[in-house]
Amino acid sequence: MMRWKCTCAYEGTAYCGWQLQDGQPSVQGTIEAALGRLLERPVRIHGSGRTDSGVHALGQVFHFDANWSHGTEDLLAALRTRLPPDIQVYRAVSAPPRWHARLSAVAKRYHYRLHLGQPSPFERRYVWAHPRPLDIDRIAAAARLLEGRHDFKGFRALGSSELESTVRHLRRLHVTRTGPRIRIVAEADGFLYKMARSLTGALIALGRGQITESDLTNLLRTGERGPHFETAPAHGLFLERVFYR
Amino acid sequence: MMRWKCTCAYEGTAYCGWQLQDGQPSVQGTIEAALGRLLERPVRIHGSGRTDSGVHALGQVFHFDANWSHGTEDLLAALRTRLPPDIQVYRAVSAPPRWHARLSAVAKRYHYRLHLGQPSPFERRYVWAHPRPLDIDRIAAAARLLEGRHDFKGFRALGSSELESTVRHLRRLHVTRTGPRIRIVAEADGFLYKMARSLTGALIALGRGQITESDLTNLLRTGERGPHFETAPAHGLFLERVFYR
Repeated sequence: MMRWKCTCAYEGTAYCGWQLQDGQPSVQGTIEAALGRLLERPVRIHGSGRTDSGVHALGQVFHFDANWSHGTEDLLAALRTRLPPDIQVYRAVSAPPRWHARLSAVAKRYHYRLHLGQPSPFERRYVWAHPRPLDIDRIAAAARLLEGRHDFKGFRALGSSELESTVRHLRRLHVTRTGPRIRIVAEADGFLYKMARSLTGALIALGRGQITESDLTNLLRTGERGPHFETAPAHGLFLERVFYR
Repeated sequence: MMRWKCTCAYEGTAYCGWQLQDGQPSVQGTIEAALGRLLERPVRIHGSGRTDSGVHALGQVFHFDANWSHGTEDLLAALRTRLPPDIQVYRAVSAPPRWHARLSAVAKRYHYRLHLGQPSPFERRYVWAHPRPLDIDRIAAAARLLEGRHDFKGFRALGSSELESTVRHLRRLHVTRTGPRIRIVAEADGFLYKMARSLTGALIALGRGQITESDLTNLLRTGERGPHFETAPAHGLFLERVFYR
């Protein structure tokens, strides 16, 4: 048996998210079914982590174990014909037997896409459209306040597990604008449940003047999330890259 | 009554094409229905020309007549809320009473998008994927042979009307490559039925070595289309711009 490390892109629109869920189409389940048909046995794959319903990925990573003697290009080609066009496995390399897509990951990078005004019909599935003016300079400056190692309890979804530590190292939170397009890049050693979308929602609320910089820093200090901002919708979020040592 | 000249973008995937067709969703019909609800009367719009089922547009132009006293931005905003997200009317200006979206047009520009290898899940709706290697330099050089005023009878779909002239002035046929992306830009004073996709199909057949440069020039001379190339699929084609005097 050999361990395979695979990298894939997917459009999340049609899926309940990465993770297997009873009776619903998941990305994991779709890839497992394709591999199962290819290898003619049940296959379990292990992702670097979940992505929510509707969230996209440019570089999700997973691993699985298999005897496959036909080489990497053949594996990719065989998967291509067995996967729907909204999921693309574009890289496969052999990995050491103990290597693990989730446990070996040291950081992840997401980005969030916003569009000021109405996006074109070709972009609408991949951006959060924003009719109102936004103070981008203020958003970009406030993002710096959130960088670093903090307790991000206030930036996760309600109903998250209370067991795990909520301290994360946000290595980077950058906001850039190109014409009507705004991109928020978030890179951390780990993300709490809906943290990337909460960070985006908070920054947008600030850019609209609904919350202030001190609301943000209070949120970091107290961990108590008020009703002041919404979680940004799933379809603007992309898992860009998973980092390994 | 005032004449309105409007410019729109649409993703053609879900439509039977621009033109009204019984019992099928058309772009024209969808815009007419939205305008009808807005103006509370039946509205007929006139496009610069048809686009086929599945073909996209970045700058299709149409006109209609209406009494509308609320200004351009209000018209666009009212249409936005009444149109599905795959159709976007993004410009509206008043036009002289005799101005006509089709009859006043002097040229059109299409472009065709190809992708060498497997496109990402985010591009798959908008490109023709090409697994095989293509000789792009040869394609780009051969495109020059087709530029100019010619009888393009050999570059239209079978079953086209025999009545109209098939001479067109192909002002520009440019092929450019950026990494795995190939773009074929075609600009002419008019296009025969499926001409843009036939030109693309012929160039690709040449790049694959299935036909030669002399086959192309023979096709221009005789107008007899052999079984040598296929018409490129609709979903890679974009109506980019309509030119007016």
